[in-house]
Amino acid sequence: MNGVIDQYRVEQKPYYHTVADEVDLYEAAYGVRMPMMLKGPTGCGKTRFVEYMAWKLGKPLITVACNEDMTASDLVGRFLLDVSGTRWQDGPLAIAARYGAICYLDEVVEARQDTTVVIHPLTDNRRVLPLEKKGELIHAHPDFQLVISYNPGYQSLMKDLKQSTKQRFGALDFNYPEHAVEMEIVSHETGVPREVSDKLVSIAERARNLKGHGLDEGISTRMLVYAGSLIAKGVDPQNACRVALVRPITDDPDMRDALDAAVTTFF
Amino acid sequence: MNGVIDQYRVEQKPYYHTVADEVDLYEAAYGVRMPMMLKGPTGCGKTRFVEYMAWKLGKPLITVACNEDMTASDLVGRFLLDVSGTRWQDGPLAIAARYGAICYLDEVVEARQDTTVVIHPLTDNRRVLPLEKKGELIHAHPDFQLVISYNPGYQSLMKDLKQSTKQRFGALDFNYPEHAVEMEIVSHETGVPREVSDKLVSIAERARNLKGHGLDEGISTRMLVYAGSLIAKGVDPQNACRVALVRPITDDPDMRDALDAAVTTFF
Amino acid sequence: MNGVIDQYRVEQKPYYHTVADEVDLYEAAYGVRMPMMLKGPTGCGKTRFVEYMAWKLGKPLITVACNEDMTASDLVGRFLLDVSGTRWQDGPLAIAARYGAICYLDEVVEARQDTTVVIHPLTDNRRVLPLEKKGELIHAHPDFQLVISYNPGYQSLMKDLKQSTKQRFGALDFNYPEHAVEMEIVSHETGVPREVSDKLVSIAERARNLKGHGLDEGISTRMLVYAGSLIAKGVDPQNACRVALVRPITDDPDMRDALDAAVTTFF
Amino acid sequence: MNGVIDQYRVEQKPYYHTVADEVDLYEAAYGVRMPMMLKGPTGCGKTRFVEYMAWKLGKPLITVACNEDMTASDLVGRFLLDVSGTRWQDGPLAIAARYGAICYLDEVVEARQDTTVVIHPLTDNRRVLPLEKKGELIHAHPDFQLVISYNPGYQSLMKDLKQSTKQRFGALDFNYPEHAVEMEIVSHETGVPREVSDKLVSIAERARNLKGHGLDEGISTRMLVYAGSLIAKGVDPQNACRVALVRPITDDPDMRDALDAAVTTFF
Amino acid sequence: MNGVIDQYRVEQKPYYHTVADEVDLYEAAYGVRMPMMLKGPTGCGKTRFVEYMAWKLGKPLITVACNEDMTASDLVGRFLLDVSGTRWQDGPLAIAARYGAICYLDEVVEARQDTTVVIHPLTDNRRVLPLEKKGELIHAHPDFQLVISYNPGYQSLMKDLKQSTKQRFGALDFNYPEHAVEMEIVSHETGVPREVSDKLVSIAERARNLKGHGLDEGISTRMLVYAGSLIAKGVDPQNACRVALVRPITDDPDMRDALDAAVTTFF
Amino acid sequence: MNGVIDQYRVEQKPYYHTVADEVDLYEAAYGVRMPMMLKGPTGCGKTRFVEYMAWKLGKPLITVACNEDMTASDLVGRFLLDVSGTRWQDGPLAIAARYGAICYLDEVVEARQDTTVVIHPLTDNRRVLPLEKKGELIHAHPDFQLVISYNPGYQSLMKDLKQSTKQRFGALDFNYPEHAVEMEIVSHETGVPREVSDKLVSIAERARNLKGHGLDEGISTRMLVYAGSLIAKGVDPQNACRVALVRPITDDPDMRDALDAAVTTFF
Repeated sequence: MNGVIDQYRVEQKPYYHTVADEVDLYEAAYGVRMPMMLKGPTGCGKTRFVEYMAWKLGKPLITVACNEDMTASDLVGRFLLDVSGTRWQDGPLAIAARYGAICYLDEVVEARQDTTVVIHPLTDNRRVLPLEKKGELIHAHPDFQLVISYNPGYQSLMKDLKQSTKQRFGALDFNYPEHAVEMEIVSHETGVPREVSDKLVSIAERARNLKGHGLDEGISTRMLVYAGSLIAKGVDPQNACRVALVRPITDDPDMRDALDAAVTTFF
Repeated sequence: MNGVIDQYRVEQKPYYHTVADEVDLYEAAYGVRMPMMLKGPTGCGKTRFVEYMAWKLGKPLITVACNEDMTASDLVGRFLLDVSGTRWQDGPLAIAARYGAICYLDEVVEARQDTTVVIHPLTDNRRVLPLEKKGELIHAHPDFQLVISYNPGYQSLMKDLKQSTKQRFGALDFNYPEHAVEMEIVSHETGVPREVSDKLVSIAERARNLKGHGLDEGISTRMLVYAGSLIAKGVDPQNACRVALVRPITDDPDMRDALDAAVTTFF
Repeated sequence: MNGVIDQYRVEQKPYYHTVADEVDLYEAAYGVRMPMMLKGPTGCGKTRFVEYMAWKLGKPLITVACNEDMTASDLVGRFLLDVSGTRWQDGPLAIAARYGAICYLDEVVEARQDTTVVIHPLTDNRRVLPLEKKGELIHAHPDFQLVISYNPGYQSLMKDLKQSTKQRFGALDFNYPEHAVEMEIVSHETGVPREVSDKLVSIAERARNLKGHGLDEGISTRMLVYAGSLIAKGVDPQNACRVALVRPITDDPDMRDALDAAVTTFF
Repeated sequence: MNGVIDQYRVEQKPYYHTVADEVDLYEAAYGVRMPMMLKGPTGCGKTRFVEYMAWKLGKPLITVACNEDMTASDLVGRFLLDVSGTRWQDGPLAIAARYGAICYLDEVVEARQDTTVVIHPLTDNRRVLPLEKKGELIHAHPDFQLVISYNPGYQSLMKDLKQSTKQRFGALDFNYPEHAVEMEIVSHETGVPREVSDKLVSIAERARNLKGHGLDEGISTRMLVYAGSLIAKGVDPQNACRVALVRPITDDPDMRDALDAAVTTFF
Repeated sequence: MNGVIDQYRVEQKPYYHTVADEVDLYEAAYGVRMPMMLKGPTGCGKTRFVEYMAWKLGKPLITVACNEDMTASDLVGRFLLDVSGTRWQDGPLAIAARYGAICYLDEVVEARQDTTVVIHPLTDNRRVLPLEKKGELIHAHPDFQLVISYNPGYQSLMKDLKQSTKQRFGALDFNYPEHAVEMEIVSHETGVPREVSDKLVSIAERARNLKGHGLDEGISTRMLVYAGSLIAKGVDPQNACRVALVRPITDDPDMRDALDAAVTTFF
Repeated sequence: MNGVIDQYRVEQKPYYHTVADEVDLYEAAYGVRMPMMLKGPTGCGKTRFVEYMAWKLGKPLITVACNEDMTASDLVGRFLLDVSGTRWQDGPLAIAARYGAICYLDEVVEARQDTTVVIHPLTDNRRVLPLEKKGELIHAHPDFQLVISYNPGYQSLMKDLKQSTKQRFGALDFNYPEHAVEMEIVSHETGVPREVSDKLVSIAERARNLKGHGLDEGISTRMLVYAGSLIAKGVDPQNACRVALVRPITDDPDMRDALDAAVTTFF
């Protein structure tokens, strides 16, 4: 079964630029196996951070993109029909608990409540996962840790984590990096010179100020990396910004013109 | 089949600090096998209490975290396909009734009505569980008892137990422990000195006063244990409180600042 | 197949205290096999009455606790996969119709309409149950009778029996017994002396007067039996009433104090 | 396969008392195989009329009690798993179309739209039933006819037949019989003397005048037969009326007293 | 597999009375295999027209009555379990595309969106049907054409075809035929003399003027044919009109009297 | 398995008329494997553009028409029952990722969120597709690219892509071509002379001005090709426009007259 877990090892060191004391705090939390919640906007680096920490701690990482049609069985496992009848297949959460991986539930708030409740017994001192359909009780491997991500800007009355779930996690706040750090990230990831990444970050900062004033969400670091990649490929910077930064985030003609103008200001 | 039930035995004495006469009352209730309802807020020790009682009474304990997607079959059991056709597999409630465990339905109000109605014949003098799909009528083992938990602060018009369900249970009220008791719990569970647990409990008491005034739920004993664990691991107390007490329970900047200020007052 | 029906025989005479002419009327209704509807509040003895009548008439009794997730198949039966392909398994209603039991659908109004419509052909002069999925038409056994229970206090616009269903049943009203009768029931069931059962019934009568004025439902006879059992077990009467009578039916502090005061008045 | 259809033959002449020209009109409609819709209140004799006509015309009758959870497959048929793989099983509508029965869909408006649309190709000049899942097209047997019942008093905005369905049927109105006819029916069915049935019908007429003024539906002929049966069994007439006529149709104390008073007036 | 498609051939020339240039336009549309949408009220002859065109063009016709519970699989096909595992079975749309039939989706707006989206790749220049579950891409037979019907009077905000669906079809308007043509149709189909069909059409015209003023839909040509059939069978014309024209389309007493009066005016 | 992917190769050069720099931008985006979003109204050529680019880049193209009943399994794959038990079958997204195709999700906003979330891990630097049910992690083939289409005019509060999805794509705007280009397309595709295509485009332009003033959507290029085809087939131009341009997009009599008048102006 080692093969099952080995495919989840992070082989190469992921590029991650430390922002504050988040690496130390996470290591301490992992030390007591505290379940962790990473809070912050789309594309600011939460997923990359978990990959980096899994690499640094030398633990396998199982990532699950949560969605509202995901059932508890998708996490825990199910019976499959085989030549010799039904056969149990562990879901990603059961694999992580059994073999000692970090299990990262991305955008957990999208999942239905049965998904979030199923993790409760793994998040208190019992650290067990009952496979009720199989009649088995997994006692989590000592290396197992649960991590969830959460975007506070998205929560609505309909979709929010229950307090009895939130209280089971420690929490770290994330945000877009500061200007210099973000420049460095964009240049490192795309190869564009610092003059270009400086302009790209400046455009993003303008757009982020419009969040809540006609934009649902600002331009993320990931989008800047997209734009930089096109520029590095020889695409005209204005076109690259149009394709990678402006068109994806707005359908509104006025907002589009405002963002296009910001692009023209810098390129 | 003893193997099935043996994995649910509570092997080691769980740490539980008696608050009032709840242990005696529960023992009397178990003596007449009265189904019990434990009422109280998140993280105040209801689950730990049931584990302690199961250990004290020497009975196996089967815990089910209820959720709104759980069906009656998840409790009662279902047919699985096998090499020789379908095979019945008892659900946790059927195992508990058949072999004589305490069955603890955690946050039962989250479950759909079919889950709560399915327990009715086990809660009156018949003490039977009809497995309608199998055509079998389980007469509960003499040791069997049903326990449910219930958080009155969460109930809404949409989600509440039916009166015809509530009337089938005796009820015990739970709440956060008094200052000295909670200090003792935190120090015992984490190893931090009493000066530290004293401060942690004081912070929690401030937050509990804000419940209903911007906080949905106060800081629980479980969260204090998380914070203490980080401090014991060498994390700066302010950072530990930020990660384990403040960030998890609020996304609101003003509330976050208020709670951070409370932390600064004490550390 | 006799084994299937024999497990539903009521072996021992259930304790039932006649209130009015309900036993004679039920016997006459059974004599013409009129389907019967038992109306009344939670815990007043409807289920016990049916058990008593089944014992008195010497007929097997199949009880089904209805719920909103119950399908027509749960009542009528379904195909199961077997070594030799699919095999039909009668549901409780089909078993009752085929072998001549009294079928008691408890809280029928909780069921979806398909459950209630499926009983129509069994309630008029045809007395048949079509197993549409199997292509069989069961002509009910001469001993078969259908009984349903119904709590008028619960009905809402969303959940009520259709008139075309109600009109297929004769109806008997049930209510909590009179003071002396209820005292006798409580003492008989728990062994507490008449002074104690007198006080318990008096507390219940006070609570029943509060129904509709802050209480959804009064204290039932079943709850008095619970309280009496704890007292017989040596629990202090005030504590027994708190656990078995007050805490289960209200979360409201004022109402709880009012009921606690009523308890103190008598004990 | 004759065995399949033979169990649906009406062996004995059902008792039916002609009210107007409905028998002749139905025979003419059957003569051109016009699909028919029987309109009228609960319990006025629509089902009995279809049984009588099926007996008179010498055709088998397949009755389906429609409900909102019934699927098109419940009518048309489905594949079942067998030792040799899947096996098709005709539903009641397919059996009726294939072997030439009258198919009676009782309370069709309760069914979901897929049930009502599935009958369309059987109701125009094509007279076919496509078994889409099987890839077969049944050309209806020359004896096949479709009949539906419909209670105009129940229709709401949410539940009504589509115009494109209604237009495919001829329609006959039904209502409670006139005084003398209803007396004769009650005496014939129960054996009570005409003095008794006279009084029972008079009570019913009073209740029918209250329809829409606190009663959703009047007392039906079927209920009078229930009451008469109890009286014939020796039950006191007032008790019989209370059980069979009054309690089933109202939970309202005032209305119950009004109806009890009407009973006292006559008995 | 020719047997599969042959059962869908229109063997006999259907009776269809041309109204305008609809036959020529349809032939031209079929010539370029343009998908067609037939718009018009219930019972005005859309289905008959498609049958006539299929006969005239010598192509098989597969008709599907759409409904809101129909899934994409009902159109496209599904895997069935067989002795040798699963076996794919083409749905009606796949059969039509594979063997070159005209596929007529009747009342397509009743279907869920997945049904209407599944036809998109068949309606542009690709003319393919992806069987995603089977991993096959059917390139439509050169004879294949898709036709849908659509009743503009029924559309609501909830149920309408998406613009991206509508734009994939050419459209033909249908309506009830003119007086003389409709007379001829009724006499041809039922054998009643022209004096009778003249009166029947006049009654229908009166009812059609009431559409939107208390009637949801007028009396259709199909209903006139029903009435004529009863009259030809010897039923009194007033009774025939009552059964076949008036009772089916209204439950309102005033409207029923108005329509009965219109009948009396002519017969 | 090459056979699986080969059927998705675009064998013949699709006719596509370049409008601006969209071909170059797409090639650059493909060069860095940036996921792309094509925005624009119905029938303006988005699908044709993707086919053209797939042909130009020499990559297979797998197109999926999204709909609200499509599940994540429809994209990712599922287990099928086989003679030797269950067998995994890749869905279209898994085939594309595994063998290196362009996967085009048409009208992705129609799909449920689980469909859109399932693509997330394929759209960031991980480029993986977890087959959670199979326990396999597909690392995307170097040639794989994801493309989605999106019609901004349709989005409502209920149906919109999540920001966290939009931010994962570069975006290209599409619109109807300019007059001369659209003329050329219509003449090329249908063979009608330029005088005719000139008039057809002029009619379309009038209709497009009515969008939002009584028309939900304008006349698309695809509809002009339909009209041209009928004219080339010998149909009178006014009739061809009536059938192919006017009737499909409006049921409103006034709007229909306005559009018919526009047709008369030009033909």
